Amino acid sequence: MAKDKKQPRPKAEPPKGFRDYFGAEVIERQQMLDKIAAVYRLHGFDPLETAAVETVEALGKFLPDVDRPNAGVFAWQEDEGEGGTWLALRYDMTAPLARVAAQFRNDLPSPYRRYTMGPVWRNEKPGPGRFRQFYQCDADTVGAPSVAADAEICGMLADALEAVGIERGDYIVRVNNRKVLNGVLEVAGLSGDDRETERGIVLRAIDKLDRLGEAGVRALLGAGREDESGDFTKGAGLGDAQADVVMGFMAAKRDTGAATVARLRDLVGGSEIGTAGVDELETIADLLAAQGYGPDRIVIDPSVVRGLGYYTGPVFEAELTFEILDEKGRPRQFGSVAGGGRYDDLVKRFTGQEVPATGVSIGVDRLLAALRAKGRLTGETQGPVIVTVMDRDRMADYQAMAATLRAAGIRAEVYLGNPKNFGNQLKYADKRQSTVAVIQGGDEAARGVVLLKDLILGAKLAQDATLEEWKSQPAQLEVPLADLVAQVRAMLDRHP
Amino acid sequence: MAKDKKQPRPKAEPPKGFRDYFGAEVIERQQMLDKIAAVYRLHGFDPLETAAVETVEALGKFLPDVDRPNAGVFAWQEDEGEGGTWLALRYDMTAPLARVAAQFRNDLPSPYRRYTMGPVWRNEKPGPGRFRQFYQCDADTVGAPSVAADAEICGMLADALEAVGIERGDYIVRVNNRKVLNGVLEVAGLSGDDRETERGIVLRAIDKLDRLGEAGVRALLGAGREDESGDFTKGAGLGDAQADVVMGFMAAKRDTGAATVARLRDLVGGSEIGTAGVDELETIADLLAAQGYGPDRIVIDPSVVRGLGYYTGPVFEAELTFEILDEKGRPRQFGSVAGGGRYDDLVKRFTGQEVPATGVSIGVDRLLAALRAKGRLTGETQGPVIVTVMDRDRMADYQAMAATLRAAGIRAEVYLGNPKNFGNQLKYADKRQSTVAVIQGGDEAARGVVLLKDLILGAKLAQDATLEEWKSQPAQLEVPLADLVAQVRAMLDRHP
Repeated sequence: MAKDKKQPRPKAEPPKGFRDYFGAEVIERQQMLDKIAAVYRLHGFDPLETAAVETVEALGKFLPDVDRPNAGVFAWQEDEGEGGTWLALRYDMTAPLARVAAQFRNDLPSPYRRYTMGPVWRNEKPGPGRFRQFYQCDADTVGAPSVAADAEICGMLADALEAVGIERGDYIVRVNNRKVLNGVLEVAGLSGDDRETERGIVLRAIDKLDRLGEAGVRALLGAGREDESGDFTKGAGLGDAQADVVMGFMAAKRDTGAATVARLRDLVGGSEIGTAGVDELETIADLLAAQGYGPDRIVIDPSVVRGLGYYTGPVFEAELTFEILDEKGRPRQFGSVAGGGRYDDLVKRFTGQEVPATGVSIGVDRLLAALRAKGRLTGETQGPVIVTVMDRDRMADYQAMAATLRAAGIRAEVYLGNPKNFGNQLKYADKRQSTVAVIQGGDEAARGVVLLKDLILGAKLAQDATLEEWKSQPAQLEVPLADLVAQVRAMLDRHP
Repeated sequence: MAKDKKQPRPKAEPPKGFRDYFGAEVIERQQMLDKIAAVYRLHGFDPLETAAVETVEALGKFLPDVDRPNAGVFAWQEDEGEGGTWLALRYDMTAPLARVAAQFRNDLPSPYRRYTMGPVWRNEKPGPGRFRQFYQCDADTVGAPSVAADAEICGMLADALEAVGIERGDYIVRVNNRKVLNGVLEVAGLSGDDRETERGIVLRAIDKLDRLGEAGVRALLGAGREDESGDFTKGAGLGDAQADVVMGFMAAKRDTGAATVARLRDLVGGSEIGTAGVDELETIADLLAAQGYGPDRIVIDPSVVRGLGYYTGPVFEAELTFEILDEKGRPRQFGSVAGGGRYDDLVKRFTGQEVPATGVSIGVDRLLAALRAKGRLTGETQGPVIVTVMDRDRMADYQAMAATLRAAGIRAEVYLGNPKNFGNQLKYADKRQSTVAVIQGGDEAARGVVLLKDLILGAKLAQDATLEEWKSQPAQLEVPLADLVAQVRAMLDRHP
């Protein structure tokens, strides 16, 4: 108390970039994650929940010589002084998986299929719609070198999207392969150790296809490109024939299925790794076809470049293909909601061993936003039944009514604020989005009845009506107390 | 890569005091929390999920003049330099609720009933079974001065315990009231501002009843107590008559129901606050009785002292009354799994306003441990069906079998490790706790059949049998491929 006087009052707000989730937001996310988990489990994946905190060492961030570890993570030093361990909040789910896969490598089944869902933290500059804590929902298979594992992840991703309410036709899973790109680079003459700079330029150029268009990318593959401001970006210096190979790689998606594969095989004809990559794509396509995943759901698409720099084999991305209106009311494609691929050095940092892994991460908030935009969120819209308090000495009776409703599975609560002003009770019910209010004054109690108020029908009067006006409305019904449950249920059912 | 050579390999382990949860542990906790959430929702409580991170200021810890905030929380300074905000991981769910209740006081319904479930973090010395991240599951009502809110929480707590599988008779919710204790202290002559030291001694003495016994407590109420080692603890200096009042307060639980209330009323007869406390206890008992919560579930019990120093009115505690075996095989009472009470200054730090609140926190890990001890956890025990790989060129066929099983709702996966050693596939199935393995070699494929292996019946052979031995076991069945789903289901049903 003495402190209160000395200190200014604290601000009642979360740190910048953090937010709260209320009511339906929490329930809708949980429902969506439950549906995804059911699909993952059906595929034999087991849940894993690691702690939010890892050592900075295990996360793979290296202590800088300055006072704090790399930006991008929230980190702190455990004990004072030089020797204290640096701890950090996890920034993704893959780093903790790597630690677990290394730590429990003798105990876990191999291959190890696991899924995990939870928050991750990024120490980045917050902005509108950009938060520093957000959910990820990952599934990974550790220890399976076969591309059958990648195919399984792709099929499971399609199943998960349908399970949460994205209809077939409203999404597409695109699959590419880093090895094919490597083959393309080889054919384009960029495979030597001395051509790393040029390979980097090509990778970045491919990644800019959407923004720069074909002409812009081709300029970057060749001598270079001058942008609108006059700035010049040096190109990779490829000749026309070499650039054609790269452009052809990106254009191969114009065909479909077998034709895409044939065109890619042709492009990388001279490259061993490229041919291996095409073989893998073909195997994935065959495996998926055998399980009934047609090109309406999963396609081979060399234009998928996101993450190509990070992954080592197959790369996949799930995109929602319907349009939504952006904040300015313009229609736009919803875009990517999940991505993943194969990365073959998961636990190497810990054990020195190469362990193959492949996985996918669903952007929980984006997928939720998509479902909201499509009207597919099934979170409750009806609030609880409110048992109003007409006579504060009869609280036990009101509590008994609520208990009776709950025993029948109906969400119900007694108004627990100051009951003096009846209008406040109805305003409360309104704020709770309640459909039904139960009312019993002394007169009703004497006659063994209750009044049921349909609050949706009666909503227009909520601001200023008197109790007598309320009683006269057709939205109000007098029923015997013994019929409470049946009559409340009937009223709730009017507003499904 | 270069870094790997320079740096020693990181240790593959979580920070001290943190742990991972695998498979059934995750599922069982989620199932338990889902059941509790359903009860809370039925009572009209809405979920709230705040971020893990709050400002130290909002959490109510004050920056010390040393380099780091108070011990007990994980905290770090946001930006370098003097002016950087200190952030911290939440250490409970009440502090974030206070911040939310203050921040959104004009938008939230009042009273605001909310529940929340999630991890909290404590920067304490870890020990065996003591972790620095653990789950809490709280329900609170903010803005309801009436003890009807406290009664509701007590009843809801009883319902929640039964919902997760604690049978009636295996738990008891005990209710006490801080005001009765205040009345007792007043009657004992300890109400003056100058008697704070003595009140503290009495509170601590009451809290030690279990450990010291009645004689020990009485010594502390009087002149003082010398322990076995010869150390002397100064007492509160009460005379015999005054000490009788305090001892009578603790002993009042030997009666039940109305008799307890009558005895307490008698004890605090001269005290206004004491009488108010007894009235509140009586009201709570009446409200609970009206909803059908008898003394087999909820009792008035003045011996509940945990948290009496913190709370301002009713205090409650849920205890499991059955015995379990401790780590040394000795039977002991399971003890407390939840506690709570009324605290009337929730948002005062932020707004200056007094806002009444009451709530309960369930110890998630303890309750899970109790359910485990009682064999009440319903997490799956059967692993997925494993479709083995006899011929790696026929992976598409195996994937199709798994897809067929999954389409029928059966958890199934194809073995994705190196298929060369069939024994390894069966060891994998064993590790996965699978009940059924599906086997199809070339011969079976030609005849359109599959072999189903009952792995539980066949478990004894898992270590060293050859494929031929496996085939000859009665635990193995050859069925037409078309009957795959029906026959697998029948085999799974053998082991419910």
